[in-house]
Amino acid sequence: MPQQPPRHHVQRSKVRARYDRDSVHAILDAGLLAHVGFCVDGQPFVIPMLYARDGDTLLLHGSIASRLVTTLAAGIDACIGVTHVDGLVLARSHFHHSVNYRSVVAFGRATLVDEPAAKVAALAHLVDALIPGRAAESRPADRNELAATHVLRFAIEDASAKVRDGGVKEDAADLDLPHWAGVVPQQVRHGTPAPADAAAAALPLPASVRALLATDEAVP
Amino acid sequence: MPQQPPRHHVQRSKVRARYDRDSVHAILDAGLLAHVGFCVDGQPFVIPMLYARDGDTLLLHGSIASRLVTTLAAGIDACIGVTHVDGLVLARSHFHHSVNYRSVVAFGRATLVDEPAAKVAALAHLVDALIPGRAAESRPADRNELAATHVLRFAIEDASAKVRDGGVKEDAADLDLPHWAGVVPQQVRHGTPAPADAAAAALPLPASVRALLATDEAVP
Repeated sequence: MPQQPPRHHVQRSKVRARYDRDSVHAILDAGLLAHVGFCVDGQPFVIPMLYARDGDTLLLHGSIASRLVTTLAAGIDACIGVTHVDGLVLARSHFHHSVNYRSVVAFGRATLVDEPAAKVAALAHLVDALIPGRAAESRPADRNELAATHVLRFAIEDASAKVRDGGVKEDAADLDLPHWAGVVPQQVRHGTPAPADAAAAALPLPASVRALLATDEAVP
Repeated sequence: MPQQPPRHHVQRSKVRARYDRDSVHAILDAGLLAHVGFCVDGQPFVIPMLYARDGDTLLLHGSIASRLVTTLAAGIDACIGVTHVDGLVLARSHFHHSVNYRSVVAFGRATLVDEPAAKVAALAHLVDALIPGRAAESRPADRNELAATHVLRFAIEDASAKVRDGGVKEDAADLDLPHWAGVVPQQVRHGTPAPADAAAAALPLPASVRALLATDEAVP
């Protein structure tokens, strides 16, 4: 009987799979939103959550009133997916249409972060994951806010990255078809920041936002 | 004992929840990549998959050699998450940092599409979900390609949408802090199309790609 492959081993398109920590971390660090999956009595749930990577763990948070966060915090098996779509791959055949992407699927379990200083630090880390440098530009969580918030640390037990990049794959017989083929790149770009009120409008844009917009400019 | 709420009912931030079909469909139609969750012996899996909405179903596809696609096709309970991040919400407190987003969580089961004409149509639909109008600009799947591909139809049994938009939520006491606050919008934008080869480079950009780029231009 064939041995079952490890749960995180990529079975299809193995050439696209990567298991090294740097590849996994780079993809996680490029994102801010994960889809977190878990099972309750055989029923799967997938919920979108903001995250921040901290070493080989992912910090998550949610309201203490959240049933799903409480369920996750009980330490059940979870699976977290993060995917960036980098381009549309348009082939001459329907079959070879695809996207360029970078994805990570990580398996592990979450535990509650209880210690107040650790919770404050985790929430600051989450703010910096949203936009680097922002935690220093805003007020840390106070006691009431900490009491209202569950912070979870998801320990990555196994993870795999999968990356498709480059050009169009095409059957030789299709190369004579009169169809355009190619890749249309896509990226996330930021628009004009909208100040919350007159007081904010009177301030210069903070360094975090200026750096974010400069990063956009640097993309070809 | 309190009755358990339905699996798709949003428990937190109920003001952001929507259950009407139009809201759910609009969010699904704005995307192309879903995170598909399911359980195997209590172990959750979350995998990124391209999708196309067809009425109250989502079309998915994958290689017949894919263990996960075969598992899904057996008709087990699945949960599909689709999320668009529309902006970074930067508050004066860490606690009120957030994102503007539109998300759908859909529960249901997938079945295999077997009939060849239905498979051909489903794959064309998936190509058009990637970029509208593209199916007519490329070759439909042939018999060998159909034989290599599983097409799944995921019937949405229940779904909820959740939307956060608008501005920054702030505690009154924080309004005097000397911090900038506001929303930084974000969108997906497309770059310069890269033709696959000299033959494609000699052709004009197809209507599908021109329309996509025009959509980008129309975003403020």
